[in-house]
Amino acid sequence: MKAMVFQGPGRASWQDVPDPGVKDPADAVVRVGAVTICGTDLHILKGDVPEVSAGTVLGHEAVGEVVDVGSDVRTVRPGDRVLVSCICSCGRCRFCREGRYGQCRAGGGWVLGHLIDGTQAEYVRVPFADLSVHPLPSAVPDEDAVLLADIFPTAYEVGVLNGQIRPGDTVVVVGTGPIGLATIAAARLYTPARIIAVDLAQTRLEAARGMGADAVVGANDAPEALVRDLTDGLGADVAVEAVGVPESFEACTRMVRPGGRVANVGVHGKPAALHLEDLWVKDVTITTGLVDTYSTPLLLRMMAAGSLPAAAALVTHRFDLGEMEEAYDVFSRADRTGALKVVLGGARDDRLERAVAQDS
Amino acid sequence: MKAMVFQGPGRASWQDVPDPGVKDPADAVVRVGAVTICGTDLHILKGDVPEVSAGTVLGHEAVGEVVDVGSDVRTVRPGDRVLVSCICSCGRCRFCREGRYGQCRAGGGWVLGHLIDGTQAEYVRVPFADLSVHPLPSAVPDEDAVLLADIFPTAYEVGVLNGQIRPGDTVVVVGTGPIGLATIAAARLYTPARIIAVDLAQTRLEAARGMGADAVVGANDAPEALVRDLTDGLGADVAVEAVGVPESFEACTRMVRPGGRVANVGVHGKPAALHLEDLWVKDVTITTGLVDTYSTPLLLRMMAAGSLPAAAALVTHRFDLGEMEEAYDVFSRADRTGALKVVLGGARDDRLERAVAQDS
Repeated sequence: MKAMVFQGPGRASWQDVPDPGVKDPADAVVRVGAVTICGTDLHILKGDVPEVSAGTVLGHEAVGEVVDVGSDVRTVRPGDRVLVSCICSCGRCRFCREGRYGQCRAGGGWVLGHLIDGTQAEYVRVPFADLSVHPLPSAVPDEDAVLLADIFPTAYEVGVLNGQIRPGDTVVVVGTGPIGLATIAAARLYTPARIIAVDLAQTRLEAARGMGADAVVGANDAPEALVRDLTDGLGADVAVEAVGVPESFEACTRMVRPGGRVANVGVHGKPAALHLEDLWVKDVTITTGLVDTYSTPLLLRMMAAGSLPAAAALVTHRFDLGEMEEAYDVFSRADRTGALKVVLGGARDDRLERAVAQDS
Repeated sequence: MKAMVFQGPGRASWQDVPDPGVKDPADAVVRVGAVTICGTDLHILKGDVPEVSAGTVLGHEAVGEVVDVGSDVRTVRPGDRVLVSCICSCGRCRFCREGRYGQCRAGGGWVLGHLIDGTQAEYVRVPFADLSVHPLPSAVPDEDAVLLADIFPTAYEVGVLNGQIRPGDTVVVVGTGPIGLATIAAARLYTPARIIAVDLAQTRLEAARGMGADAVVGANDAPEALVRDLTDGLGADVAVEAVGVPESFEACTRMVRPGGRVANVGVHGKPAALHLEDLWVKDVTITTGLVDTYSTPLLLRMMAAGSLPAAAALVTHRFDLGEMEEAYDVFSRADRTGALKVVLGGARDDRLERAVAQDS
């Protein structure tokens, strides 16, 4: 089969690799229908995630069809259309038993496209299939479903629930890439008083407004002053960091009110300064987290019911699976291409829309 | 009257000042019976708390007798023996209505010995007396009660409850001064599997063992390795920072397991490094907080019932009120004098015990 193979920092290519097969009785093999590229894949490509070995197939988000299962698999069978979650879980270890599937200590957690071959391929082997894939209702198209592999559960669990967003809250979301935009959409489920979106890119701020942000502000246009003005000088109830750089994390800790919450969603490569000389007295709660995907079944039902934004609001570029290298190129130049989420594969009737998006 | 007056960085003296009186209908004036010195007072004396003006009477912990009340005061009257809490609260502002009395925006919060004259005096004016003083049951002696002005509610609310200590947890307490020791005692109420105490000073580690720590380790004797060994390499469920320096905070973030909690109790003067490159993926919750004292009535009942350690376990030195400067000297040289909590005033029959403690 063909797959996107990491070859060390700065290099990956769409190339021939052996077909995966069932190696463990709990495995499933899935033929990939739709797959995406995540900002984390770019981090890997840059060499920021050193535990990824050369030769690993990238990717941790996909929708596809089960083609083979091991003898222990009970809940899916060949022919089933499934979501491949970014988190695999054994379901049996201490962490899985507490619902912290992302911290699975028995070979699960974030392994796809990280410690084992991932989803940017024609086929993918998924460990612990009973807990790691989700049968898809026909009401949810491939492109909508693939957003539930990572970005919506991450935004909901690590942003909205960790941040304890409540009705009437003022919420600041710093960073309005796909995860930040999904956070805005998921935050609205709790009817906050207002959501303030902060980003460097005007195009992303426009997308944030489209997703439901009540106010948008450039990261260099005094967002802290705006937050103060809108909150009687107190600060936001919740600040969500969705960038992954020290500056934006530190800004979140400055923008939050006494008693407020900072939910870190961003993937970081460097330490930030924690200004305890100001914060010790402020009753602030700071959370970090890898997604556990315990909410994925719930989010699937909500997507089917129309309570979450469909792919059209987030997917800017569409490609055939074989155009993987081109898709990486467009996604990695998001500042110039305006790319938010890119999808490869998926329904064929989207080809025209893709052509329009690429020209714009 | 006499009072301990801050005169700018490095200088304070026990001197004559005008007697305080009722200035607002919600005030009470209390004749101080027993009073303590807090590590925070030393911070002020060093100039670390710049909002304290020269001329302010220091101190925010006391027990005494009400001698006058304003016309609005309903719950105490002259002659009542009361605890003066380190936190005053209006009870009416947004923060007070949520129980965040420490963040009171109407002239309460931590004001005594900070923004207004404090308790290290013969008399003290207490604003919002109905919520800021607590009538004392006769079963609780002065020296026990005065520990409930700050250290026990701080340890319980900011350490134990913010840290969400649960039965079976492994708890690390970094720093075993009075607050750390009170945290160990309060943590035991939740029946953790083990409490590991970390400090630089051997005498404080001995006190920690006396308070109920199951293991003690020098801060320079590889505490992180001990915690790993005791937790199958995972780390502690909860780490409580009770020192107030970047190194101990950073050690707490390294010693906590995935999904664990870091509760900061220490008063900090400098930023710490937050290693988000390791922590983003670890599901860690970090809390900071000034005590609110919502638990003070509960802790008073528990102290009366014998569920909290009495003063004998924490008070190493006793003085007359007029020996304030000597008491500051002994407390500020704790590394040499072995001082934990010092009490001025209080019952007369402790004079002998004090002499013994000073000689040891």
